[in-house]
Amino acid sequence: MLKLYVTPATCSLASQIALEEGGAVYAVERIDFARQEQRSPDFLRVNPKGRVPALVTDRGVLTETPAILAFIGQSFPESIIGVPKDPFEFARIQSFNAYLCSTVHVAHAHKRRGSRWADDPAAIEAMTLKVASNMGDCFELIENTMFAGPWVMGETYSIADPYLFTLAGWLEGDGVDPARFPKVLEHRQRMADRPAVKAALAAVQG
Amino acid sequence: MLKLYVTPATCSLASQIALEEGGAVYAVERIDFARQEQRSPDFLRVNPKGRVPALVTDRGVLTETPAILAFIGQSFPESIIGVPKDPFEFARIQSFNAYLCSTVHVAHAHKRRGSRWADDPAAIEAMTLKVASNMGDCFELIENTMFAGPWVMGETYSIADPYLFTLAGWLEGDGVDPARFPKVLEHRQRMADRPAVKAALAAVQG
Repeated sequence: MLKLYVTPATCSLASQIALEEGGAVYAVERIDFARQEQRSPDFLRVNPKGRVPALVTDRGVLTETPAILAFIGQSFPESIIGVPKDPFEFARIQSFNAYLCSTVHVAHAHKRRGSRWADDPAAIEAMTLKVASNMGDCFELIENTMFAGPWVMGETYSIADPYLFTLAGWLEGDGVDPARFPKVLEHRQRMADRPAVKAALAAVQG
Repeated sequence: MLKLYVTPATCSLASQIALEEGGAVYAVERIDFARQEQRSPDFLRVNPKGRVPALVTDRGVLTETPAILAFIGQSFPESIIGVPKDPFEFARIQSFNAYLCSTVHVAHAHKRRGSRWADDPAAIEAMTLKVASNMGDCFELIENTMFAGPWVMGETYSIADPYLFTLAGWLEGDGVDPARFPKVLEHRQRMADRPAVKAALAAVQG
């Protein structure tokens, strides 16, 4: 059986929603960052990077959200989360998700994880000051040029939707008013009503 | 015909090598960062993010290295760069490439692109001081737990190989001695001997 390692309020929510949308049978294991469980020897054996999500399959462990989402999409091809077989359509989705992981998530991480990139406390503090404007810039690009609507890619729901929903949930905490992005905000509200999203949130909050 | 926008010494090299390995017919257009061409109205119409690579296809533009590489791999399935149809094997490759884009490339970017994440010059300077240790940590993880050998994923060459080759080429510039990572270094040297790599490097350097 699949097992997903998750932490509340992290990007692991995206993979969990995708599993729910696919109708997957899976177990959830919570990693408590407050107790530094991501650095425990047991978890580092699962994921040497010490991060969530990690998806344990009967063939091995997968990490990194865009890879896990594509795996779920390819593993449940008949479900709503199934990914297109057409290489170009698939690449458009992967491009959106790669932007979320390499730019948007990274912009957000400079708020609480600045110590990854500098040791000087003043520098870490300086990074936090730019998070709101960077996240705002990212979501402006998403709102104005990337988001097709009503779903991320257009008429068809995809593995990009749970991922955008997850990161859009960080806006207020990062000091950005989501009302600036009406399409993203409407999407976020519509996603929150989906049974798969409710189930994922209930499971992670235990 | 495919057209790839590239800049020398950037991650666009990975996509270019993949096109060469696939035997693709494609044009190259160089974007000169020194002349700020990535911010020109013409290029922003191609890629509103103002970054390379961007791959123009007859169906639209693709951006983000992991997405472009997967597209090339799926578009040339019979070539050496073709990607596996098996979802788990494909996800393992995508996981490796997602780590390169979201963690390794980001670690590197704090050397010259620190102004993305802070405005204070002292903070930007502080970020540069941690680049060597971060890149060293990333490549330790790659060397010791992620790189299978002789290719990234094991016996089979994949879209992960041009990407690792490209980022491993940044080690010396980031103050890291590549001799610390013998498997990665040997891979880098073996990649450099491939005709596709030589052709890509010759094309970008014009």
